[in-house]
Amino acid sequence: MILIGERINAGFKDIKEAVLTKNASSIKEWAKKQEASGANYLDINLGTVSQSTADLCWMIENVQEAVSIPVSIDNNKPAMLKEAIKVCEKPPLINSIIADDSVIDEIIPIVIENNASVIGLAMDENGSPTTSEKRVEHAGKIFMKTSEYGLPPEQLFLDPIVMPVKHMQIQVKAVLDAVKQFQLFSDPPCHIVCGLSNIGNGTVHKKLINRIFVATMISYGLDAAIMDVCDKELVESILTAELLMNKSIYADMYIESFYKTKAKNLVSSAS
Amino acid sequence: MILIGERINAGFKDIKEAVLTKNASSIKEWAKKQEASGANYLDINLGTVSQSTADLCWMIENVQEAVSIPVSIDNNKPAMLKEAIKVCEKPPLINSIIADDSVIDEIIPIVIENNASVIGLAMDENGSPTTSEKRVEHAGKIFMKTSEYGLPPEQLFLDPIVMPVKHMQIQVKAVLDAVKQFQLFSDPPCHIVCGLSNIGNGTVHKKLINRIFVATMISYGLDAAIMDVCDKELVESILTAELLMNKSIYADMYIESFYKTKAKNLVSSAS
Repeated sequence: MILIGERINAGFKDIKEAVLTKNASSIKEWAKKQEASGANYLDINLGTVSQSTADLCWMIENVQEAVSIPVSIDNNKPAMLKEAIKVCEKPPLINSIIADDSVIDEIIPIVIENNASVIGLAMDENGSPTTSEKRVEHAGKIFMKTSEYGLPPEQLFLDPIVMPVKHMQIQVKAVLDAVKQFQLFSDPPCHIVCGLSNIGNGTVHKKLINRIFVATMISYGLDAAIMDVCDKELVESILTAELLMNKSIYADMYIESFYKTKAKNLVSSAS
Repeated sequence: MILIGERINAGFKDIKEAVLTKNASSIKEWAKKQEASGANYLDINLGTVSQSTADLCWMIENVQEAVSIPVSIDNNKPAMLKEAIKVCEKPPLINSIIADDSVIDEIIPIVIENNASVIGLAMDENGSPTTSEKRVEHAGKIFMKTSEYGLPPEQLFLDPIVMPVKHMQIQVKAVLDAVKQFQLFSDPPCHIVCGLSNIGNGTVHKKLINRIFVATMISYGLDAAIMDVCDKELVESILTAELLMNKSIYADMYIESFYKTKAKNLVSSAS
């Protein structure tokens, strides 16, 4: 499973503050904390706090000073992406494109030129889908167009668009159906990703809902998530779901070894 | 979800003791405790402690003195079943038959005569299946033969045979595939049941594995389980999985209301 840490987002008060005052300590702290929790990518999102490319690059640079894992640039403006991608020390994940010709035509050449990966949202300029059919249609268009550009499936992360269960309960089944079908586009299939925290938005039992949802999604093919990687119970649910789906080999201490390996990685990258 | 309490089983020391000394207090206590936890059926299993029909009837009678929910008679001997079913105050669940003509021919007439339900294990006299195809073949035979006898699908619970992930990790996928196909036998489909605790047998993180497995199984169609109904976290995982699959209507307090409704039922059945 590819864990994408969601926390370096200027929607959070401490990150907003950091960007505004150019005090990087909380950004670096969250970068380290998320890496230690097992993150494979760190999502960097400027939110609405700034439209400045320099601010986005400043965030990325500070994250890279703190950790060695690659970033996910959570921004959809081609001009900003072009600059931000230049400061990335490792091929980043671009978050995101939609099923719109002009968006794809602008962004995919940048992705390919930089050997980056990209998240394709199963929606178009008219907004979010409500059925599995619409999701498959949008994702299919993204898959086809990015293939034509020569993007290999392992660099494409398709996102079925997860809706809050509180307001759109029937959408979960549509998402699961769509995810199964995304995997039929190619062999090997592209990655399946989602913004996990959406599912429990506004609910009382949010963390439990996240855990059960991620386990279900993994059994339908999810292999990446933008999520709260510091939620240990959530990570343990993911490790268990992957074990059940035979994606990792059973060991009595499968959870303990995950954290031991992560800790070892941190030691070796620090030395 | 139909919750079948697994605890009144003479494989457990206190229940074995109760049967041997004819002291029903622990049987009654477990019956009440499981009913209060939300059980819809209570499985009654004599284990290897006795082959006496009188002992089986004694267990059932004591459970019925303590609670008002029906029992699941965990026994496959036609002669014992015939007698035990007579003492049942409500139509019981018979646990279980296999895909063997002589077993079906002996037991199904008893099931139908008593308006009972029955668990059909996806195996035959040669033992447990290792593939989804074999599971579907066995379950299909059970479905066909019980239909010919006139058993309605809602009185048939098909069990895909869950194997411990520790020793047979690859079997989980076979079970999920099989379960999807069992639901194609009829419309409406028959129930899908499993012995849940098998999955985590011998593992260190047993309870977590049970929780993640049941959530996955529910997303593939499971609607009944023989399980530790007193494991609150397990029940909460089930309630959450059913919510996500749109089988219950979202309410902020969906967990709290489950327990409140159960408590109310107990008060009204006691009055």
